[in-house]
Amino acid sequence: MKVDGRWRRTIERDGDAVIVLDQARLPFEVAWLRLTTLDDVARAIRDMHVRGAPLIGAAAAWGVALALREGHALDHACRVLAATRPTAVNLKWALDRMRTARDAEAEAQRICDEDVAGCKAIGQAGLPLLRDGCNVLTHCNAGWLATVDWGTALAPIYAAHEAGMRVHVWVDETRPRNQGLLTAWELAQHGVPHTVIADNAGGHLMQHGRVDLCIVGTDRVLRTGDVANKIGTYLKALAARDNNVPFYVAMPASSFDASSDTVEIEERSADEVRAIAGIVDGKPARVRITEATVANPAFDVTPARLVTGYITERGVVAKV
Amino acid sequence: MKVDGRWRRTIERDGDAVIVLDQARLPFEVAWLRLTTLDDVARAIRDMHVRGAPLIGAAAAWGVALALREGHALDHACRVLAATRPTAVNLKWALDRMRTARDAEAEAQRICDEDVAGCKAIGQAGLPLLRDGCNVLTHCNAGWLATVDWGTALAPIYAAHEAGMRVHVWVDETRPRNQGLLTAWELAQHGVPHTVIADNAGGHLMQHGRVDLCIVGTDRVLRTGDVANKIGTYLKALAARDNNVPFYVAMPASSFDASSDTVEIEERSADEVRAIAGIVDGKPARVRITEATVANPAFDVTPARLVTGYITERGVVAKV
Repeated sequence: MKVDGRWRRTIERDGDAVIVLDQARLPFEVAWLRLTTLDDVARAIRDMHVRGAPLIGAAAAWGVALALREGHALDHACRVLAATRPTAVNLKWALDRMRTARDAEAEAQRICDEDVAGCKAIGQAGLPLLRDGCNVLTHCNAGWLATVDWGTALAPIYAAHEAGMRVHVWVDETRPRNQGLLTAWELAQHGVPHTVIADNAGGHLMQHGRVDLCIVGTDRVLRTGDVANKIGTYLKALAARDNNVPFYVAMPASSFDASSDTVEIEERSADEVRAIAGIVDGKPARVRITEATVANPAFDVTPARLVTGYITERGVVAKV
Repeated sequence: MKVDGRWRRTIERDGDAVIVLDQARLPFEVAWLRLTTLDDVARAIRDMHVRGAPLIGAAAAWGVALALREGHALDHACRVLAATRPTAVNLKWALDRMRTARDAEAEAQRICDEDVAGCKAIGQAGLPLLRDGCNVLTHCNAGWLATVDWGTALAPIYAAHEAGMRVHVWVDETRPRNQGLLTAWELAQHGVPHTVIADNAGGHLMQHGRVDLCIVGTDRVLRTGDVANKIGTYLKALAARDNNVPFYVAMPASSFDASSDTVEIEERSADEVRAIAGIVDGKPARVRITEATVANPAFDVTPARLVTGYITERGVVAKV
């Protein structure tokens, strides 16, 4: 997708290094980090300068390639990178591929290219669901920034935009971490019309016919077809059902997890609710809004009965 | 309710003046304003140092009493006060009462006392709905701070607390204006256990049996029984229905508006979404979180079919 008018990936080769967009500073500052060593990549993943499961996998693959060039052993590189975000499934998957690769740099590039092709295919699969002038509601950031290019939930929207279709996106703020602001940022960079709303507003908009469909991403789809995704997804799925608005989940087919029918919901730090990042007097700052006791479940599970279909790189699956 | 361990009203007579809690600075600073003139009261209402329809009515009544003592004509006082918040129904109602009162100070005091009695009766009416150890979810602030004492949605919770019942409150943050932080503040002052959650979290908590009932306030109940209330109320009502959690609306009977079956939804300033109040470096500040295009509908309408009952000072009405 475009940044400052140029088509970019979230991770790009640059001579002997890779450059990544620094997501720890977005949307308030746009800065690219140049990563030249294993330590650079490990730090970038650990400190969330890169985020989004597919992008973490791609960054880790490049971490191995850079490590080998530095003279590190393959095992050491994989061990260091695996420890950065131990729960990210794509990280383990990418490292497993790098362990058996003959040409590390070519394999890292291939992992990136495959991610781009997969996301682009999700976009093409979802494109027929959109109409000129339609309004799509999305939650969290399942866009370009979470992948190498195109995104998942946003891929059909970008595909429509590239095809000359007018699409407007309702962007849920997505408290507590406000990933909706990342979504708004990337849509703005690419020139896709959008409007940020409080998470509370989506139901009202659906009641008034202002949402034609919802598309969200997912962290994992269970054997039952139930969808684990960012907290609040379930509430939008309920409102969509109550107002006959189609509700789609966009995802690589690999996000289907046939082996599980429950998922443990991560309880994250209270400070994610208590403090909010933004700009004060022109400078990045965090404002503390409460010192109260806080609960912060990070994900919820939307029952399959509320899902209209799953948009994958292989096409749209109406039900699992 | 208690503030700093003392039972207080949000508006109290103090010799020749009235004192009010400055809600423009809550929950980050606790300050009481002393109002001695018509202009003081008009400014306090206009600049939202007092808020909440019942409290605005009570403050306006005292504004008339103070104005007469200053030597202002009754008509002039009512005109100045009516212009402060032209849409507040309770404001007009209180001024109408003051126009025909023989003793202005006694009438202002009576309006305050009646509000307290009404809210206390709402609390007693709702009390049988609660059980020892129960968890109540509420949205926005329909508490002590919006009234003279006890509140509406929080009145049954305070009644239970006073009766020695253990009640825990899930407090929706209530973006964009974060009135949930006012709710958390007043519950903390009175010693009622509570937990602040992002607006996105309530559905997940209901799915896991962690909410026994919901109680919200309302700005107006239509002839149909549909409930206009703070944006996001509808999403919680949907989740309550989907999980068999009772969903109650607490209100004075005067909030039933038999004359209307629709309500126009106020679209408020984008800056309410774009900037958030809190504390930076120990001082009150506002952080700007986005410059994107924003929509900010302030209320939504919850269909009567999702409401279990209406808690009024006359008892609980199962359906209108």
